[in-house]
Amino acid sequence: MNRKLRMAMIGGGKDAFIGAVHRIALNMDGQVELVAGALSVKPEVAIESGNMLFLDEERIYTDYKTLLEKEAAMPADKRIDFVSIVTPNFVHFEPAMMALEKGFNVVIEKPITFTLDEAKQLKAKVEETGLSLLLCHTYTGYPMVKQAKQFLKSGALGKIRKVYVEYPQGWLSTLLEAAGNAQASWRTDPKRSGKAGAMGDIGTHAFNLAEYVTGLEVTHLCADINIVVEGRMLDDDGAAFLKFNNGATGVLMATQIAAGEENNVKIRVYGEKGGVEWKQEDANTLLVKWLDKPTEIYRTGAGYNSSFAAHNTRVPAGHPEGYLEAFGNLYRNFILTVRAKMNGEQPKDECLDYPSVNEGVRGMAFVNNVIDSGESEVKWKEFVV
Amino acid sequence: MNRKLRMAMIGGGKDAFIGAVHRIALNMDGQVELVAGALSVKPEVAIESGNMLFLDEERIYTDYKTLLEKEAAMPADKRIDFVSIVTPNFVHFEPAMMALEKGFNVVIEKPITFTLDEAKQLKAKVEETGLSLLLCHTYTGYPMVKQAKQFLKSGALGKIRKVYVEYPQGWLSTLLEAAGNAQASWRTDPKRSGKAGAMGDIGTHAFNLAEYVTGLEVTHLCADINIVVEGRMLDDDGAAFLKFNNGATGVLMATQIAAGEENNVKIRVYGEKGGVEWKQEDANTLLVKWLDKPTEIYRTGAGYNSSFAAHNTRVPAGHPEGYLEAFGNLYRNFILTVRAKMNGEQPKDECLDYPSVNEGVRGMAFVNNVIDSGESEVKWKEFVV
Amino acid sequence: MNRKLRMAMIGGGKDAFIGAVHRIALNMDGQVELVAGALSVKPEVAIESGNMLFLDEERIYTDYKTLLEKEAAMPADKRIDFVSIVTPNFVHFEPAMMALEKGFNVVIEKPITFTLDEAKQLKAKVEETGLSLLLCHTYTGYPMVKQAKQFLKSGALGKIRKVYVEYPQGWLSTLLEAAGNAQASWRTDPKRSGKAGAMGDIGTHAFNLAEYVTGLEVTHLCADINIVVEGRMLDDDGAAFLKFNNGATGVLMATQIAAGEENNVKIRVYGEKGGVEWKQEDANTLLVKWLDKPTEIYRTGAGYNSSFAAHNTRVPAGHPEGYLEAFGNLYRNFILTVRAKMNGEQPKDECLDYPSVNEGVRGMAFVNNVIDSGESEVKWKEFVV
Amino acid sequence: MNRKLRMAMIGGGKDAFIGAVHRIALNMDGQVELVAGALSVKPEVAIESGNMLFLDEERIYTDYKTLLEKEAAMPADKRIDFVSIVTPNFVHFEPAMMALEKGFNVVIEKPITFTLDEAKQLKAKVEETGLSLLLCHTYTGYPMVKQAKQFLKSGALGKIRKVYVEYPQGWLSTLLEAAGNAQASWRTDPKRSGKAGAMGDIGTHAFNLAEYVTGLEVTHLCADINIVVEGRMLDDDGAAFLKFNNGATGVLMATQIAAGEENNVKIRVYGEKGGVEWKQEDANTLLVKWLDKPTEIYRTGAGYNSSFAAHNTRVPAGHPEGYLEAFGNLYRNFILTVRAKMNGEQPKDECLDYPSVNEGVRGMAFVNNVIDSGESEVKWKEFVV
Repeated sequence: MNRKLRMAMIGGGKDAFIGAVHRIALNMDGQVELVAGALSVKPEVAIESGNMLFLDEERIYTDYKTLLEKEAAMPADKRIDFVSIVTPNFVHFEPAMMALEKGFNVVIEKPITFTLDEAKQLKAKVEETGLSLLLCHTYTGYPMVKQAKQFLKSGALGKIRKVYVEYPQGWLSTLLEAAGNAQASWRTDPKRSGKAGAMGDIGTHAFNLAEYVTGLEVTHLCADINIVVEGRMLDDDGAAFLKFNNGATGVLMATQIAAGEENNVKIRVYGEKGGVEWKQEDANTLLVKWLDKPTEIYRTGAGYNSSFAAHNTRVPAGHPEGYLEAFGNLYRNFILTVRAKMNGEQPKDECLDYPSVNEGVRGMAFVNNVIDSGESEVKWKEFVV
Repeated sequence: MNRKLRMAMIGGGKDAFIGAVHRIALNMDGQVELVAGALSVKPEVAIESGNMLFLDEERIYTDYKTLLEKEAAMPADKRIDFVSIVTPNFVHFEPAMMALEKGFNVVIEKPITFTLDEAKQLKAKVEETGLSLLLCHTYTGYPMVKQAKQFLKSGALGKIRKVYVEYPQGWLSTLLEAAGNAQASWRTDPKRSGKAGAMGDIGTHAFNLAEYVTGLEVTHLCADINIVVEGRMLDDDGAAFLKFNNGATGVLMATQIAAGEENNVKIRVYGEKGGVEWKQEDANTLLVKWLDKPTEIYRTGAGYNSSFAAHNTRVPAGHPEGYLEAFGNLYRNFILTVRAKMNGEQPKDECLDYPSVNEGVRGMAFVNNVIDSGESEVKWKEFVV
Repeated sequence: MNRKLRMAMIGGGKDAFIGAVHRIALNMDGQVELVAGALSVKPEVAIESGNMLFLDEERIYTDYKTLLEKEAAMPADKRIDFVSIVTPNFVHFEPAMMALEKGFNVVIEKPITFTLDEAKQLKAKVEETGLSLLLCHTYTGYPMVKQAKQFLKSGALGKIRKVYVEYPQGWLSTLLEAAGNAQASWRTDPKRSGKAGAMGDIGTHAFNLAEYVTGLEVTHLCADINIVVEGRMLDDDGAAFLKFNNGATGVLMATQIAAGEENNVKIRVYGEKGGVEWKQEDANTLLVKWLDKPTEIYRTGAGYNSSFAAHNTRVPAGHPEGYLEAFGNLYRNFILTVRAKMNGEQPKDECLDYPSVNEGVRGMAFVNNVIDSGESEVKWKEFVV
Repeated sequence: MNRKLRMAMIGGGKDAFIGAVHRIALNMDGQVELVAGALSVKPEVAIESGNMLFLDEERIYTDYKTLLEKEAAMPADKRIDFVSIVTPNFVHFEPAMMALEKGFNVVIEKPITFTLDEAKQLKAKVEETGLSLLLCHTYTGYPMVKQAKQFLKSGALGKIRKVYVEYPQGWLSTLLEAAGNAQASWRTDPKRSGKAGAMGDIGTHAFNLAEYVTGLEVTHLCADINIVVEGRMLDDDGAAFLKFNNGATGVLMATQIAAGEENNVKIRVYGEKGGVEWKQEDANTLLVKWLDKPTEIYRTGAGYNSSFAAHNTRVPAGHPEGYLEAFGNLYRNFILTVRAKMNGEQPKDECLDYPSVNEGVRGMAFVNNVIDSGESEVKWKEFVV
């Protein structure tokens, strides 16, 4: 198969934020062609947005159901290969299920669904169909995050003992949702965002990052969940103690009211012999700390990195790669996997290393568990999936 | 009064760690003369150490009781003005009480005593005698920590909402106490260290720093306390959620098993309009973050700092001041206060700004509360003093 | 005109470095379609590369002349709009001239040509044809570099007095060209690289950055040019004192033998009241320093930035943008300019802010002047264009 | 000999800057007693300052000649062991010569004298008398600077090829000397400061640091020397290309008009296999960079450091040591040397590692050579001593 993959986008019209990010990420490597879209629930926005993206008029749809039906009915040499769903949380599940049923691979923004049960259904459907699904936990696409995971996996630092993961933001320090901010509006609305605010929006990222980097699973947690800004309907701040399945413990912090903070996701993991530290503000650096020798600065693009880091790097060392490249890596690995499967080949391990339905189910379980724990007077809560 | 103050030291012989640090700190400003000492419980070490410090032979004592009695019996123009107690935790209370009773001012290493009750007795005695007591929470001696406190106090950032304070160390990642390390040995021994290990040793510093910088008091906490290294007798790792008396919440992390970490105490405090960040590894910098304008880098020695920061600075901006200067600031402020009182003057506010018995009582209460919470199955525990 | 622009690439086959970078940069925003290529001088590589890029077979060419002739002969609704020339230095001029003569806009890697005279001819041709030419001085595409320029231009720091610009690399610390490294091989070969090695490869970037950020022009220089690695044919290290047309002075440093350095281009500019500092390793930060108030940290994506910085930013603050986005900004501005001109509109100032023939001529003049000065025993040399 | 050394200070009265710094540095380790002083040329200031420092009235002198004569006439068990000269540059030579002639060891602020010839005379006198002289190039007292020197000396990085040293300050960005600033006043006055301004004040530090760390000597230089602020009488800005006696080259930058800069002395040295980087703003870190493996972060107090770094460290890793400790190390090593010689012992190599007359002579030669080069139209100038 020597052609670009064909795709459609659901959501992500001209006023949306994350849709545009997806498009940069998927365009970057020149492996995909955006050929269809149901870009907005507002027909005029859907059409205008489709035109801005140079879509053929007949493939600019005004609702996702029509899109999926019409595309499914197209001949194989024209039909899309996958669909990207970049709508608010409450409109993830249905289009994803329908797409899978129509035989399309799926990319979906996180959190995967509105409820844990939906996530499980989606997982079952993916397993049933054998199709691929990418869940966009972007931070795991950074080369130095992959390096951290591989380094820990190598055992060089011994058994993992302690995990600190944090995601401080400040943008919800005021009641933005009452000031007409569209992003704030749906993200703080239980009907569109779900059970959790900050915990769903960024807590899930922190949780996913911790499980990804360590290769461990959380078994218990104890959470302190707060609504700090008066008048807000969902949590905007929280923290959780974590217990992992190897006996390690951890602390997770996620807040949207740390006024003055941007988006400095950070993770530190300590084993018996040393630790690793990565933070988004210095995304091309991985610090490797040792009990008895100098800390080492691992850098994106250097020759000593693992094949997983190298596979997710585009330019030589010293040319900083950022958030969009990390996002692009999710797409690239998903696309390489889809392409390999279409060609009847086994995808490389490095390609298969992208977040999918398992991460989706655990993320939704995190939302449930962390909110439940926040409301509980008992300290430790078992992590139930 | 135009002379150096005269002092004695209890503990701090030639093999001890913190005693040498105290001496550098107190020598720095040329305001004190070390004239007497009971520097070790081992007589030969006490004598050799006294000689190394150029003490007169008759003022080299081999036990603190004799020291305090003999010194108290000396004529006023020869007698010491204060005593520094730098022994392990379980030998703080008795010499301190006796010194106060003999009319001497007191400097004492933290934690102030072995039990909360002793701390309260010491506080009562200080109040009764009108003497001065310095408790060595060094981190509050840094100019940029003082700047942080004053900045928050000014109200420029609005009401405080969130506090993150952390103290990661790695030096106890192995069972050093079984390998003959003297520091590790007493610090992990309940008989000499007290109820807590890491929580007493460094958790109290983090707790003190949080209360000092914010000007708030902790009212509730929820702790996760761990013994990570097998065979250890006291906690070497822990974290606590905090509630403060203005409604703010916080997270405190202190560990001694973060392999590869040195001593990077760090505090972040967020108000409605911005936040401050300070860490010991970049001690001469205070970051001031804003919701809507660029983060500012406040620097030790700059003209725009508060009088409290300026008072605790020795050299112009750009000449880094470190841990020993911060420690020296505790002594300097204590000495200026003692001197002022001896001269019948009211000490300046900047001089009075050093940790004392209140901080000591709250620190001991923290040890009790955090360990109790760690053992409890109930989430939140009221902070009892 | 509602379609993607169509382009061809000359050079940049499967084994080349910079061609792949160009493709990511130009794909990123979904505004261009790569439809033709003469991707290698080796026919089999040209064909294989064309296939890998999904080009139509009839538009995979094996030499640039055929490409330009055939494309020029195509109907307007199929013909390319511009061509990207990503060949080694000695194959820049001829294809660029021919493309302009055929009516195509041109993107060209730096240095613009092999000789200064060629650069002047190209400039004349661009002015004559009214076509657009983009010269890829990537560093000027970073949002915070643009912010630095605008900030200095605002006059907030007063008259510019001092400029430090540096570009330290270490990759040529050994005689890589003798070890079969293709990049090293042509870059250190006078026949393919030109009069200068390091000065042409990275010195020109530093020079361009200094003139761009300050808005000043160099009038005199004094250079120390070295071949450090034995056996090398061109300079691999150098420095130059600079005089600018407003009386300011500067120091430029560029080296490829700073073993252990990656690519940390850095510029500092000081005016009467403060200074700015930017470096590629922390590309999303611009430090603004003041004589009498705290240094400010300007950040990509923040609301307080100039329209020029904002125009070149793709994601909100806190999501790091890197080298590829900076490169993408060059393309984006060039494309927006080309598109505006095709639509008969005046491009916005923010779009026109990309390097072109003037920068190319000055860059080639820098190469001449700096090498001449390096060979001279007289200290100061007038900068001759 | 079991007593503190006794010393006098010349200059450094209550309004002076550097005298107070000296006192902190020398007090720190409790090895010295300040017993005499001629602290100011103004008698009333000399007396008031002496009282503030608790000197005996009879040892408060109002001129240095009387001090040196009277102290020399005292009995051996009372007489000073050394004198610290902290006066402006033009009052260094005479008291130093007289002190040496009277048999006293000498500490002297840099630059060592007013002219190169005086420096040579002082060197001859020191060699003749066998006494010790400390010249206060503070930056070489930092543990991580010593580590850098030892690391390079070990040969781990191969032959040294390139040196970048810089000392950017901003405090003379305005004509402070016309605004009554005492420091600015004498430092910019040829009659009190000498032939050079910035080059003498901070250029000599940069020069000394480069020669100290590399163990090399400058053989040629080419300088660009400027007076940037109108009305100033001495250079406030400059840079120099350097050639070293092993064939390495370098760039030295020193300026006092980099508005917004504090005192961030920085040195980078590159060998065949890697490089080292140290800067005062992060004084407890030494970066060791490698061609083909991760950069390492060496830290003050860590067990892997050389004996020279360890010898100059007072507290465990993670407790930052600063400028005053570096200064204290100069005094400590000088004192240990003086004490060893008084005891008829050979001082340890680590103790002898402090700047003295050789560094003084080379520093004065630097001033001459760099100013001469600045005025010359010939590019390279041999470094003449």
